[in-house]
This record gives sequence, structure tokens and C-alpha cells, in this order.
Amino acid sequence: MRIRRLLVANRGEIAARVIRTCARLGISSVLAASDADLDALPARMADRVVRLGPAPAAQSYLDPAAVVRAALAAGADAVHPGYGFLSESPALARACAEAGLVFVGPSVATLEAVGDKLTARSHALDAGLPVVPGGEAADLAGARAVADRVGYPLLVKAVGGGGGRGMKLVGSAAELPDALDVAVAEAGAAFGDPRVYLERYVTSGRHVEVQVLGDGTSAVALGDRDCSVQRRYQKLLEEAPAPLLGDDVRAAMADAALALATHLGYRGLGTVELLHDRDRGSFHFLEMNARIQVEHPVTEMVTGLDLVAEQLAVAEGLPLRLHAEDVAVRGHAVECRINAEDARGRPSPGRIERVVLPVGDGIRVDTGVQAGSVVPPHYDSLLAKLVVHGTDRADALARARAALDLLRIEGVATTAPVHRALLDDPELVAGGVDTGSFERWQARRRDLAEVS
Amino acid sequence: MRIRRLLVANRGEIAARVIRTCARLGISSVLAASDADLDALPARMADRVVRLGPAPAAQSYLDPAAVVRAALAAGADAVHPGYGFLSESPALARACAEAGLVFVGPSVATLEAVGDKLTARSHALDAGLPVVPGGEAADLAGARAVADRVGYPLLVKAVGGGGGRGMKLVGSAAELPDALDVAVAEAGAAFGDPRVYLERYVTSGRHVEVQVLGDGTSAVALGDRDCSVQRRYQKLLEEAPAPLLGDDVRAAMADAALALATHLGYRGLGTVELLHDRDRGSFHFLEMNARIQVEHPVTEMVTGLDLVAEQLAVAEGLPLRLHAEDVAVRGHAVECRINAEDARGRPSPGRIERVVLPVGDGIRVDTGVQAGSVVPPHYDSLLAKLVVHGTDRADALARARAALDLLRIEGVATTAPVHRALLDDPELVAGGVDTGSFERWQARRRDLAEVS
Repeated sequence: MRIRRLLVANRGEIAARVIRTCARLGISSVLAASDADLDALPARMADRVVRLGPAPAAQSYLDPAAVVRAALAAGADAVHPGYGFLSESPALARACAEAGLVFVGPSVATLEAVGDKLTARSHALDAGLPVVPGGEAADLAGARAVADRVGYPLLVKAVGGGGGRGMKLVGSAAELPDALDVAVAEAGAAFGDPRVYLERYVTSGRHVEVQVLGDGTSAVALGDRDCSVQRRYQKLLEEAPAPLLGDDVRAAMADAALALATHLGYRGLGTVELLHDRDRGSFHFLEMNARIQVEHPVTEMVTGLDLVAEQLAVAEGLPLRLHAEDVAVRGHAVECRINAEDARGRPSPGRIERVVLPVGDGIRVDTGVQAGSVVPPHYDSLLAKLVVHGTDRADALARARAALDLLRIEGVATTAPVHRALLDDPELVAGGVDTGSFERWQARRRDLAEVS
Repeated sequence: MRIRRLLVANRGEIAARVIRTCARLGISSVLAASDADLDALPARMADRVVRLGPAPAAQSYLDPAAVVRAALAAGADAVHPGYGFLSESPALARACAEAGLVFVGPSVATLEAVGDKLTARSHALDAGLPVVPGGEAADLAGARAVADRVGYPLLVKAVGGGGGRGMKLVGSAAELPDALDVAVAEAGAAFGDPRVYLERYVTSGRHVEVQVLGDGTSAVALGDRDCSVQRRYQKLLEEAPAPLLGDDVRAAMADAALALATHLGYRGLGTVELLHDRDRGSFHFLEMNARIQVEHPVTEMVTGLDLVAEQLAVAEGLPLRLHAEDVAVRGHAVECRINAEDARGRPSPGRIERVVLPVGDGIRVDTGVQAGSVVPPHYDSLLAKLVVHGTDRADALARARAALDLLRIEGVATTAPVHRALLDDPELVAGGVDTGSFERWQARRRDLAEVS
């Protein structure tokens, strides 16, 4: 079915991003905005705006019935959920199907399979992927049994969702009971599902992910990204392609991601997250994200693809028009997430007084804010993504430094100074970062509170 | 010689552009700024700023001695002249050579050969290029003799320079004497050289140009651009590749441009401007520009090249590192020149109160201004170039429309509304524009004064 009018059920930079693709494809865009977002930049970009509900996400962006009502009221024939919120919600996908709307994302069955992290692990095993040693922790006794098998340190993770919520690092057996209690409580609050599982914590692990696109029958890998620079399990800086990967490991990762996508009969854009153990040269499956990622622009910059357009095409039921031979990676791209956070990572909502974005060759900024925008306290703190494209990694890092020097966002604290300092870190420059690098670097940089 | 510190002897967006490449290549950038530009955006981007002289260009950007003094004072080893001003000045190139500075541009001999438009015509003929029928008009009698040969309408053009200055359209023999007088006076004032020549005016001519790069021994063509959308001989909108060109004509144009570059032993970045007669399917040589062009970003977007970096490499004396097989054109790019001008093309200097630039995938903005910038009355009125990259021409035009809808520059009048209206013109959309299209379109659009 050809999508003629698309409801964008999200906010901020990803709403703006989806609207841009609508404009170029001649698709009418309707933004579903909460009361806090009715005057935001995406609302000015969309062809039309409909009110989704009150500012709190539970009454707007997280309410499947409200989204479907908005789509039907606007005469939309499809719903793009962006990322976060209901983007991986089987409930929204099901409600769309019942209302005769195209849900821009995988099938309900796929969303259920990959949304349950334990089920996803089983599918990965079935597809032949190595998974990080671990298992379900139904209670303390069960957790201890798994912990004895995988060893410490380990991570407690929520079965019902990802993104770092409900995740706890456990250094020793003594810490396990408390960590389990906290994780169960957090998981229940965040995902409505208190189940947790344990996974071995790979100290020097690198977070590498493979972008895949499937039409339900076949799938294609669109390159990899490294997202190891994280603060409290939140990605901060991403790059494509993943640096310092041998050709054989890179190819094996792409094959593994494709094997899983094919096993699932995957239709949509998705990301297979892998943990690369650089000491051992091996990798393990972490989870699959059944939506567009925040960091998709680095892939777009090195491949020249419009991933939202591809996402819409497979949502329309079209067969894959991209094949492995069409995907060429050119140069290197780096993305810095500019969040409204202070140097310690605490949210910094407020009014943005001034915005100067770096522009020019090799620079892309995705944002949903401009001068005068209000950053509401209700949602996540991502303001803008500064993405640069260079001939190689060193070139991209140089461009990122120069671009950050020009970026000015005043009125709220941002992570820009953290990025600027981080980009001079010899470990980052060498390309050898792992998921623990940022915290180690931050511990060394006690002056960071001053640079922000 | 390796360039380690580069004096950027220009202003506005092209100064910012050159500084960006310095940043990524690790070259120290020194901006030579007039008193009017000491606080402008490029001055904030450069590693260092030196004062060039008072605001009037004659005492700063047009004074070769001042440029060389600034370079030596700053310890620079090379000078990038940008475009306009002294970019094609044999005097500056000679003064640089005498001071031991690398001039980022062709040799003195080449600058003299292509700067004299009659000499350039002779070289083009020698290289086997068809030239537009015409000839020197030393006096009225000489002009009449040429006019009898080429017929009316014809153009009177300045021998000493291009860019539309000193150019007059002559419809009939009766208009010739006055047009000649005015052109001679304008040419003398603009270029210090009152000589003029005549050229047949091709009514349905398209302005197509080929980007070339040479190292003095060999040269490579980097694709073509169409710059037919002009107002009073000033380019307004450019695109790459040139639309509606047959493969054979496109290849013949590239061959012709390469033949001229090779004949000249050309070293540097240059542009061979051709007039394509779409009725006859033929083309003729117009002139060669021995510098980077305003519209170079459309070529960069479709080729992925950094033309400033290539320009610096050949200026360092390196052999060409680009070859025909390295140049792949991907998609289509369009550039809209956002000038501080009202709808009728009159300059609109002043203070820029607000700037909102469109950003995101497929969008590039090159600019030297930001909110708070003052547009001085001394220089040309280019504020920003909005450049978009699409999978094809229709896609690029759609992106340009959406991006223009987001652009806000307040405090001075700009050409943005003109571009926005123009992008809906069926003739432009069809790709069949010629150098007269804009004026015909403007005559049809009497409401243009209202949209700005």
C-alpha cells in the first residue's frame, strides 16, 4: 500500500527527521504532538499538526489509543513511531493493524519476539549467534544459579526493555540480592514487566551494531556502527564504520545479523547489537532493536542512503530494493549526542536562548530545537545530533572538533563541552574505546564540571 | 612544499569554507580581515586573525601588498584568495612568489592568459574549442565590423574581467554606440582596463561549466554544473550535474575543458564556462575562471570530494591524486544563493537579527554570518548558500523547497523568497532553463515584490 499521509507519532529531532523524508518523497506529514510540543520546530515543519494529548508521555506519546485516534482523525494511512516511546510496542502495532493503518515497523510477532530480551536471546541462539553467557533470574535462588555459571562481574538486565533502564552492574555475590531488588523494581516501573535476567559483564567489551533492513523474505546488512562511548549505559558518541575491526570479524558480524533477521523473517529497519570482546576477538549477541536508531545518521552519511525512506518502502510492502552490492561505505562518520544535561549527566530543562549550529561541508545536524524552544522536563534530553563525515576516522574527528567549537546552545547546559574534551582523549583518538572507557576517562577528567 | 599555515585572504562564506578544510587537514588558519570583518563568523573560526586594512575593499581585500604583508606578519607559508577580489590577480600571484609564499591558484602566466578574455578566446581556439562568434571592439568602427559579422543581438563584454560587470546586451545597430560607451566606462572602472569585445548573444543558451583540476602536467574533469538561472548576469541557482544534457554532449564538454586545461599546462582548480545552445545541440567556449567558484559545493555534494583540499594539494606541488576513474557522480545537488538583496535585486545591508538555518540529512549550508552579524555595504551581498543533495533532480528540488521553508534570516531582505517561488516554476522543474529564463519568469511573476 502506498503511504500518502504519514502520522509522525514522536517529537524532537526524530520527528523533524521523518518529516524531512516525507517532504522529499511527496508524502503528506502530520505531526502528533503533545501539548508541550505544539509549537516546537517539528510542528512548524509538518504539513499539519494534531494534538495527541497532555504533556506527560503516558497520556500522549505512550498511549497507543491516542496515537491511533490522531492518525484516523488526520486521515493518515500510516504511523511512524520514531524511536523510544511506542516504537517497539506490539500494542501500537496491533492497534494500527486493527484500524487499517500501516505501522512503520516490524510485525507484531517480531516486536514481541525481540522485545522480550530472553526470547530474543533464544532466537539468536536458534539462528546460530553466540550469545553472552547468562539466563533468567526468576528469583534470588535462580539468579545465584545463573551467577555461579557466568561468574562476576555480571549485569542484571530487564527482560521487558533496553536502553539502560533496569540495568545494574554486580561486582560480587554479596551485591547480588540488592541489585536484583532494585533492578526488578526499576524494570517493573519502566516496562510494566518486573522480569530480569543476568548476563556476564565483558569488561573490555565494545558495543558494535549492525544495521539491517528486511522485507519479510530477505534482508540486507547496511554496515556497522560502534557505540561504545556510553555514560551509564546511554550512548553518547557513535561512529560508522566501527573502527579497528578486522575484515573477517566485520563480515562475520554482518553475517550473524543477517542470519538473525532471516530467521525472524524480519520486515523493517532493525539493529542487531553485538558485544565485541576485543581481547578475545570474539563477539556475542546482546539484543535487537526493532526500530530506527538515534545513531542512524552515521550510517546514512557513509552509505548515502536515506534509511527513513527505505523504512517506509518496506512498510508499504515493497520488496527490498537495496542489495548487498548497492551498499558502499565511503569514509567515516561520527555523531555526538548533544543532550540538555550538565557535565554530570543531570537533565537541564529550560528555555533555549540562543542556537548557533555549525554548518558546511561534511557537517550534518539533526535537531528539533531552535532559539526560543523550550526543553520540557517530560521527555529525554536529546537536543541535537552533530554528525560529521570525513574521508577517514582522523578526518571525521578533526571535523567534529572544529564543528563543536562553533556550536552554541545557550539557556540550558549541554553535553557539547563533554564531547569537545572527549574528542581530544588519546584513547578515543586511537579508536580503542570500550563501554567502560567513558567512565574511566571521566574519572581522570575531574575538571569536566568546569568546562560545561 | 607542505602548507602548514594558510592566510585566508577573503571574507564571508568562502573564508569559512577554506578555514573548515584547514581544520580537518591540520593546517593552521589565519584570516586576513578588513576592519568590517574582524568580528565576523570566519574570524571566530580561524586559528588567528590579522588585520588587513580598512573596510573598503580597495584598501584591504583588493590590495596585493597588504595581503602579502599580512601573510608574512602571520608567518603563513601560503595564501588562499578565495573567489572574487584578488583570486585571479597576476599581481598577487607575483607578489606571493617574490615573497616566498605559495599562492593557491594557477601560475602568473596562466592568470594573465585566462584573465584577458580575448587571450583566453585565442587559447580556446588553439586548443580546438568552438568559441562564440565575436571579436575585439577597439573603437566604434571596429565594433561595427564585428557586429556585422556576428549579427544582433550581441553582448558587449569587458576584456579585463567577468562576473557580468561591464556587460551590455545590444539588440540592434542603433543601440551599439551607447552600449559601447557605457561598457567601456564600466570596464575601466571595474577592472582598470577599458577594453571590450563583442560576442553573439545566444538567446536560448544554457550556461554549463566543467570543473577541472590540474597539476601543471595533467588534468582531470570533475563533472559539470548548470548555472543558467541568472539575474543580470549574476548566478542565482546552480546545480550538478547539468540536467538534460545528452551523454555525448556531456562527454564532449568534459573533453573540451580538459583540452584547454592541458593546452594551458593548467595547475590549480579551474572552471571552463561553456554556452550550450540547446536548439542546435552545440556548445561554445565562454571563459575560464582560474579559481574556486561560488557554486563549487554542488560538485562536492555529488562527488564527495573536498575541492579546497584538492586545490591545496596541487598548490603544494603534488601530482594529481585524482583520476577520472575516481570521480563518480552520485545523485543531484542544487545550490540557492541567499543574497542580502530585496526582490528586485537591490542590496540590503544591515544587521542580521535572527538566523535559522535548515539542517539535517541532504542539507548543507555554507555561510559566513550568524545572528548579530552586520552585512557591510562594502562587499558583495552573498550571505549563505543553501545546498541540497538528492537521489535525483526532482528529489533535490523537493529537498530545496522544504529547506527554504525552514530558512529564516531576519533583519535584511534576502533572495530566499525568490528562490522559493522559483523552485515551483514548471520551466525550472522541467530542467529546461536558459540564461534568459529567470528574467522571463520574473516578468510573469509580478507578485514577487510581495513575497519578499
